[in-house]
Amino acid sequence: MVKINENYLKLQAGYLFPEIGRRVNEYIQANPGKKIIKMGIGDVTRPLVPSVVKAFHEGVDEMAEAETFRGYGPEQGYAFLREAIAKNDYQDRNIDISADDIFISDGSKCDTGNIQEIFSHDNKIAICDPVYPVYNDTTVMSGKTGERQPNGYYEGIIYMPCVKENGFIPDLPKERPDLIFLCYPNNPTGAVATKEELKEWVDYALKNNSIILYDAAYEAFITEEGIPHSIYEIDGAKKVAVEFRSFSKTAGFTGTRCAFTVVPEELKAADTKGNQHPLKPLWNRRQSTKFNGVSYPVQKAAAAVYKDNGKREVAEVIKYYLENARIMKESLSEAGYEVFGGVNAPYIWIKSKDGMDSWSLFDKMLKEANVVGTPGSGFGPSGEGYFRFSSFASRDNVIEAMQRIGNLT
Amino acid sequence: MVKINENYLKLQAGYLFPEIGRRVNEYIQANPGKKIIKMGIGDVTRPLVPSVVKAFHEGVDEMAEAETFRGYGPEQGYAFLREAIAKNDYQDRNIDISADDIFISDGSKCDTGNIQEIFSHDNKIAICDPVYPVYNDTTVMSGKTGERQPNGYYEGIIYMPCVKENGFIPDLPKERPDLIFLCYPNNPTGAVATKEELKEWVDYALKNNSIILYDAAYEAFITEEGIPHSIYEIDGAKKVAVEFRSFSKTAGFTGTRCAFTVVPEELKAADTKGNQHPLKPLWNRRQSTKFNGVSYPVQKAAAAVYKDNGKREVAEVIKYYLENARIMKESLSEAGYEVFGGVNAPYIWIKSKDGMDSWSLFDKMLKEANVVGTPGSGFGPSGEGYFRFSSFASRDNVIEAMQRIGNLT
Repeated sequence: MVKINENYLKLQAGYLFPEIGRRVNEYIQANPGKKIIKMGIGDVTRPLVPSVVKAFHEGVDEMAEAETFRGYGPEQGYAFLREAIAKNDYQDRNIDISADDIFISDGSKCDTGNIQEIFSHDNKIAICDPVYPVYNDTTVMSGKTGERQPNGYYEGIIYMPCVKENGFIPDLPKERPDLIFLCYPNNPTGAVATKEELKEWVDYALKNNSIILYDAAYEAFITEEGIPHSIYEIDGAKKVAVEFRSFSKTAGFTGTRCAFTVVPEELKAADTKGNQHPLKPLWNRRQSTKFNGVSYPVQKAAAAVYKDNGKREVAEVIKYYLENARIMKESLSEAGYEVFGGVNAPYIWIKSKDGMDSWSLFDKMLKEANVVGTPGSGFGPSGEGYFRFSSFASRDNVIEAMQRIGNLT
Repeated sequence: MVKINENYLKLQAGYLFPEIGRRVNEYIQANPGKKIIKMGIGDVTRPLVPSVVKAFHEGVDEMAEAETFRGYGPEQGYAFLREAIAKNDYQDRNIDISADDIFISDGSKCDTGNIQEIFSHDNKIAICDPVYPVYNDTTVMSGKTGERQPNGYYEGIIYMPCVKENGFIPDLPKERPDLIFLCYPNNPTGAVATKEELKEWVDYALKNNSIILYDAAYEAFITEEGIPHSIYEIDGAKKVAVEFRSFSKTAGFTGTRCAFTVVPEELKAADTKGNQHPLKPLWNRRQSTKFNGVSYPVQKAAAAVYKDNGKREVAEVIKYYLENARIMKESLSEAGYEVFGGVNAPYIWIKSKDGMDSWSLFDKMLKEANVVGTPGSGFGPSGEGYFRFSSFASRDNVIEAMQRIGNLT
């Protein structure tokens, strides 16, 4: 008899976003004609910028002629894109990352999930709570955990609570983890790590021989000086960190699909005999064997983000979303909520009033304001009592949603 | 200390295509100005067809306007594409596969590698020899094997030799496998399985509670009546088979990236207690958690393959490659080689003369005819003495290459 991967059975059946969808649909069915404003899922709404569209079309045109047609590309991505990333995202910020350290992919979701394949199942994983569910679920699927506990934690994972009391930056764990998932600017809390805070983590990893899996998908939303855009701004990080970046939120690529992962030359891990092995060839082997590169026109489109026009255009879109966030932050504060995030991140994280739980606040927002957000408890038990709004809506919808919430009693 | 996945260290360092590249470059450096004709890697050369290009552009244009912009799509793929596939590739051929059984992805390489994630590591894998290396290497990476043996086999995998004596269709294995990788039309041998031959395998899987992982990436090249295009043409196959299909060779998408995997409702496997679980929800969970769908304009482009114009245009391209194959088959026979494949597949598989080994024939073809093919032994020990040509070159190059080979002494 063929046997399934039973670890899948440990996963919670009712995943967050399907449950939100179910409640929203139920409400719509019972209340036809109501205008629901969705600020739940962190999905962009502004179109691709003109420079990206132009390059995307050019890429398609190249595929239409035998002379310029491209078949299989390099699994690691085309040099033109890897070089543009290395220069603009790293070298121009005085970070010594080369094109060869960069692996183009079709999404950070894939990469943050797949990265565990190059590590042994014996490694101990630490993740934040609340957290982007992919880190948790892919760890469960890989077989590194026991069963789900009543509080939502899985046996064998080190959970690191992030609450307003610690500024949503986890305390250093008491038990040493091998792999540590960190995400700043953070999804879902909108918090950022200062250079000093991130340095503490890099130093911890250096001292404890741990590796940080650093998700910087929201880096483009950083507005304040001194907040690191890359973990490699911290000395020594190249020895202890993989970095994930994406065009999804930076350039509206959630439906276009392009991202990248940085695995520096210096990053190593051990075999059971204690011999050190660089991780870059392992990731390269994983990608070469199980991935066939990103669509050529998509890579052309992504590269346009680094041209002068492209930079200016995507910066305008980011500004639009951040102005949404500013309006939301102000309105929600005025409505009496304690508000976090939204300054260096597209997410607003609020604390409910009077100890209301997250799903009750979800139902109240849905039924009384016809606004959909995301219950904080859906991201982990320490998210209980919190609620996430995404600033990716249109300006008109943001203003209307905030007025409705302001009118709630 | 963080530990690596040591299974990666078992993989052979010198992978087939890099070694080919190395020898070709070495020859070019030593012999500048020679015109090398490449018929090694199975990569298409004809441009995307007009209908596909048009739909691709339209998809990009939709991404350029707020009203038609698409963010995250369904991880399983858009309904318009899943439905077009279900209708054209299955229902119109009287195969009862629904859109809901179809999962759109960015490549069959990814899917044939990733599929093992939903199965336990205890399962025993059977693969053909010679074989597309991805089945073998991803099995090794997943930890199901021991070390590599001197003959290239890995301990723990059931290898099934495919040689001219068995018509390149493996004999039923003596030891029962859980998962069986089959690929028809075959890469690298160009062989096809008749309905009767495939039925034997389906019956074997039904009787032995095995599952067939059926790679039908070259289905579009079938020209002869009675050769099954899908394993689901065989009664009972929906209970024992996953099918992989791709737009890579069908429609020239090797650089555009789109494929799909079929997991029928009826397909089940067991947990350790012996309870049966349908596999479709497991694959759905895998894809939803670790994949974010295929680029929207790419899915639009793929759907154009199923429109009337698109069908006609891609059929023309396939015909072009098959005419190449016919010319190659004829010329190579005339040149005294025993020739297989090329009628229902884009690959020509020849037997060397006078017992020459595959790499010697590679060197002879490279140095004396300036033609690059692929040594059969690179696909597995049973490929020793064989040699693969791909028919994806331009007509002029095919003719010139065949003339040069015909003139060899």
